[in-house]
Amino acid sequence: MSKKKPDNTMNKIVSLCKRRGYVFQSSEIYGGLDSCYDYGPLGVELKKNVKEFWWKHMVQMRDNIVGLDSSILMHPRIWEASGHVAGFVDPLVDCKTCKGRFRADQLESSVCPNKPSKMVSECGGELTDVRQFNLMFKTQMGPVEEGATAVYLRPETAQGIYVNYPNVLQSSRQKIPFGIAQIGKAFRNEITPKNFIFRMREFEQMEMQFFVKPGTDTEWFEYWKEQRINWYDELGIRKENLRFHQHGETELAHYAAAAFDVEYKFPFGWQELEGIHNRTDFDLKRHQECSTKDLQYFDDVTREKFVPYIVETSAGCDRTLLTCLVDAYEEEELEKDTRTVLRLSPRIAPLKAGIFPLVKRDGMPELARKITDDLKQHMMVFYDEAGAVGRRYRRQDEAGTPFCVTVDSESLENNTVTVRDRDTMVQERINADGLLAYLRERVE
Amino acid sequence: MSKKKPDNTMNKIVSLCKRRGYVFQSSEIYGGLDSCYDYGPLGVELKKNVKEFWWKHMVQMRDNIVGLDSSILMHPRIWEASGHVAGFVDPLVDCKTCKGRFRADQLESSVCPNKPSKMVSECGGELTDVRQFNLMFKTQMGPVEEGATAVYLRPETAQGIYVNYPNVLQSSRQKIPFGIAQIGKAFRNEITPKNFIFRMREFEQMEMQFFVKPGTDTEWFEYWKEQRINWYDELGIRKENLRFHQHGETELAHYAAAAFDVEYKFPFGWQELEGIHNRTDFDLKRHQECSTKDLQYFDDVTREKFVPYIVETSAGCDRTLLTCLVDAYEEEELEKDTRTVLRLSPRIAPLKAGIFPLVKRDGMPELARKITDDLKQHMMVFYDEAGAVGRRYRRQDEAGTPFCVTVDSESLENNTVTVRDRDTMVQERINADGLLAYLRERVE
Repeated sequence: MSKKKPDNTMNKIVSLCKRRGYVFQSSEIYGGLDSCYDYGPLGVELKKNVKEFWWKHMVQMRDNIVGLDSSILMHPRIWEASGHVAGFVDPLVDCKTCKGRFRADQLESSVCPNKPSKMVSECGGELTDVRQFNLMFKTQMGPVEEGATAVYLRPETAQGIYVNYPNVLQSSRQKIPFGIAQIGKAFRNEITPKNFIFRMREFEQMEMQFFVKPGTDTEWFEYWKEQRINWYDELGIRKENLRFHQHGETELAHYAAAAFDVEYKFPFGWQELEGIHNRTDFDLKRHQECSTKDLQYFDDVTREKFVPYIVETSAGCDRTLLTCLVDAYEEEELEKDTRTVLRLSPRIAPLKAGIFPLVKRDGMPELARKITDDLKQHMMVFYDEAGAVGRRYRRQDEAGTPFCVTVDSESLENNTVTVRDRDTMVQERINADGLLAYLRERVE
Repeated sequence: MSKKKPDNTMNKIVSLCKRRGYVFQSSEIYGGLDSCYDYGPLGVELKKNVKEFWWKHMVQMRDNIVGLDSSILMHPRIWEASGHVAGFVDPLVDCKTCKGRFRADQLESSVCPNKPSKMVSECGGELTDVRQFNLMFKTQMGPVEEGATAVYLRPETAQGIYVNYPNVLQSSRQKIPFGIAQIGKAFRNEITPKNFIFRMREFEQMEMQFFVKPGTDTEWFEYWKEQRINWYDELGIRKENLRFHQHGETELAHYAAAAFDVEYKFPFGWQELEGIHNRTDFDLKRHQECSTKDLQYFDDVTREKFVPYIVETSAGCDRTLLTCLVDAYEEEELEKDTRTVLRLSPRIAPLKAGIFPLVKRDGMPELARKITDDLKQHMMVFYDEAGAVGRRYRRQDEAGTPFCVTVDSESLENNTVTVRDRDTMVQERINADGLLAYLRERVE
């Protein structure tokens, strides 16, 4: 955990997110709800595109991975089997002096509320004994409280995949090695959520569990490490801001034989984006034991029976979105001024093009509207006629829109339009009839 | 509420859903979790496609609607303002004889557990007094129970839109009339969930709230009624199975000036798919009062200030998916046998094509694999070489796949393939180079 405070870049991104409709504080008119955020009009499109890009690469383009969407509420015994009821805890202490509450293992990086220049480990306040606090949200299902079942909001999507493994195997006619992929919400009652949408209590995961024959797990682990770091590259994230972090012996989770994190260099330090884990047969064996169902795989070629090993790739969707924003954010010095530009990959940018009439007369708005309506059948575009065209360009730069299409007087004569590139600011003139193909080639 | 039991069709659909990987019982290996379901490999694709079809029609193709994705956990005062804490209740009674628990307003349609041939209203068991039971799931947020905040899992996505209205208005530069659309999970602790995925405790909504000037609300209400029923038509649902149901004076919710349901004729009777409501200024006025924030709209042309009226279109995503399955399901008598076929619209079908080598030799698998790999860059397709080609066709009929592409000996000579249409079973021979364009034209 880095002690560095978020520098100015994070504040600027938080501010841009609100101004342009990427991310809002949840329940803001009621003073906000700590650690929950809402995605605005551009944020929801960016998130959709990130998820779609993951799904395309992890499911659609592969023969041996299928999708799943399991429910958030699951049978409570699943969390006993997984170890979450007993072990998904944080150690907590209270300070008897300032009444603050802290993670016992982070006293050296937690600021004392009474002495903001000191950490809790140095401020001299007397601390209570350590208590174990379970991070799962608990609720009651069923008609009245006394007869209801205690259920949990899932703290990870992975268990939904494991318990569906027999049904997916049977219905999809897959054979080992194969994977099950899922995107969905998970909930953790974190004591210290922080860094904007990096660590939230409600968040979304993109997880894939790959079922393999024991003995081939190391090979597949290496394969998925490479595949996953390449994915961030294809997403447009700069290579120099990505690295692997290998979990040492003491960091490894109880279920893992090997673990690597993909980390990104955020303004607040290197932090985990995704974990690639060799979970061995821990999970399926636990569920086999607790459910008393046979979860062995039968290989009809070798006639062998075994509990598969699992290699997991577990990414945070909101973190990936934050990574895209941070990596894309730039303040560019121009000859006469500075422009803020979000250099998002065109494939994930919320709006693919801004469509502008140069001026609000002479038929330009009508032609620009027509072009907008045609493009809207195929992609997200935005019509804008308000203000000088230069200001309209800058608004789209800040929103991350890769192209701006302008209708001018020449357009009315020969049906051509100018297309301005967000990154180079270079304009080229093309025939309006070829516009859809031009954009598709660059944004899909 | 119809007394009719689900007929055979529902059982057949439930069975097909499990067999083909559309829908599984949640937590099945642990005996299941009442009223929760998981979407399998085909179900998750169908759901994605239904949501994408809604988003395209409600957001992408419109100038005056933008998207939102607000969190499930929101500030608890929102549910006081909305009326849910006080009024989102069902009346409950217990039977002192059989210990069963029932909705007091549905005794005439609830079966007595001790006397399955009788309804609770006639079985003679003595009932307790009526108790009011709130349908919201409650949980605790924050580090320890004594100091935590009670929060609810949202019972509808609409309130997330209302409280974000000022931020969306400002960041999107929209003017009234305009709408905010959202797809997301909602949770209701129903006493009597039933009919497979029709009424679940965890479900997904597709809601759009349209903000208008008071006095224009009736006109917009009529507009949205028409738009929404047309959408089901474009989704491929048979017209004769859709109808409007107008809420009478006694049925109207406290917030509504007018309400129509879009209903579908399920095997278990006509049931609501979507509600179109004129919610007046009820919601924004309540949030204005409770948050003390000014939620008035300022019209910069007329210089008027007013609290907008809201016309809502609120659809159930899981219900729509069930509708697609029910409407598409058919057992077709052929000359020698019967085939089960899901006549899903190609636009929402999970798999767009099955790709088969006629036999597993002579280079046919290699060519079929190559075609599969090429198509997988653009759409979901499935390679299958197992069993007679006739059986492979039937498996894809049952999965709802609109096209099957077969590579035969002629393919190796002249690069043509046969394309079989699911509905007509007619095959035509086309050049493999034109296959992508052929399919795109029919499935996009």
